[in-house]
Amino acid sequence: MELLTIGTIHSPFRESVGTPVQPSSAQPAEGKIEVFAPFTEGLRDLAGFERVWLLFWCHRARPARLSVVPYRDTVERGLFATRAPARPNPIGLSAVRLRSIVGNVLHVGELDILDGTPLLDIKPYIPLYDSFPAAARTAVISADDRFEQEPLTPAE
Amino acid sequence: MELLTIGTIHSPFRESVGTPVQPSSAQPAEGKIEVFAPFTEGLRDLAGFERVWLLFWCHRARPARLSVVPYRDTVERGLFATRAPARPNPIGLSAVRLRSIVGNVLHVGELDILDGTPLLDIKPYIPLYDSFPAAARTAVISADDRFEQEPLTPAE
Repeated sequence: MELLTIGTIHSPFRESVGTPVQPSSAQPAEGKIEVFAPFTEGLRDLAGFERVWLLFWCHRARPARLSVVPYRDTVERGLFATRAPARPNPIGLSAVRLRSIVGNVLHVGELDILDGTPLLDIKPYIPLYDSFPAAARTAVISADDRFEQEPLTPAE
Repeated sequence: MELLTIGTIHSPFRESVGTPVQPSSAQPAEGKIEVFAPFTEGLRDLAGFERVWLLFWCHRARPARLSVVPYRDTVERGLFATRAPARPNPIGLSAVRLRSIVGNVLHVGELDILDGTPLLDIKPYIPLYDSFPAAARTAVISADDRFEQEPLTPAE
């Protein structure tokens, strides 16, 4: 199972520090997704979608550890319960706002990805399949954080 | 960029025909996600999430074509505007309902993935990052489908 790069992500984020942990309308960042020539035919009809998924290779991630302290947390969690980029298969997932497509370039907003990141795939965001606003995280009850109900935030 | 298999998806779907195109509460299917022993430490704390993302390798997909006719559609679309599994990097993405975790096995619902599919990653579903219920697809206006506003459905 080998991957190939279909494009490059261009963003204002050059370093991990200060890069938003996931897209958020509270920290809007505009960027450009460059799609390489052999794949641009696949962009047809994409412009009509307000939001798209980007799948990308977290090329700056450290080797994966299966227990991590999520960003702004103090307790170690199992890796698959976080959105930390350093994973056995370091494939990042972000739903970005699509502004426009000009030739082979997607102009996007609410971007949180490091500049120069290799692009693996683009998928349309379809609320019927992707949106579950009520998906809960139940309280983690323990001696340390009894009734803790805050959403997990991913490690940097 | 090489991938490794971290587990296997076990589902009732042995053939593409009849397999739901994406998870849907209208076609509930229960299944099991087996996570291989070297990675099970990463499952800690995951059980509290109602919904999780599965990333998987579409091992049965044909070679990718950049224009496809989506399922139940009649017009060819650019591949990246669909959820067709045959892609340059055939990484599937599905948000499934997590019922329970027993040892190294996730019991899930609303599963739409073929039996035996290699698992690449598990991520927690976090509505703040992942849920955009109002993400629109604007009407595609053309001589053939003027004012067509139906959601795209993916190719099989």
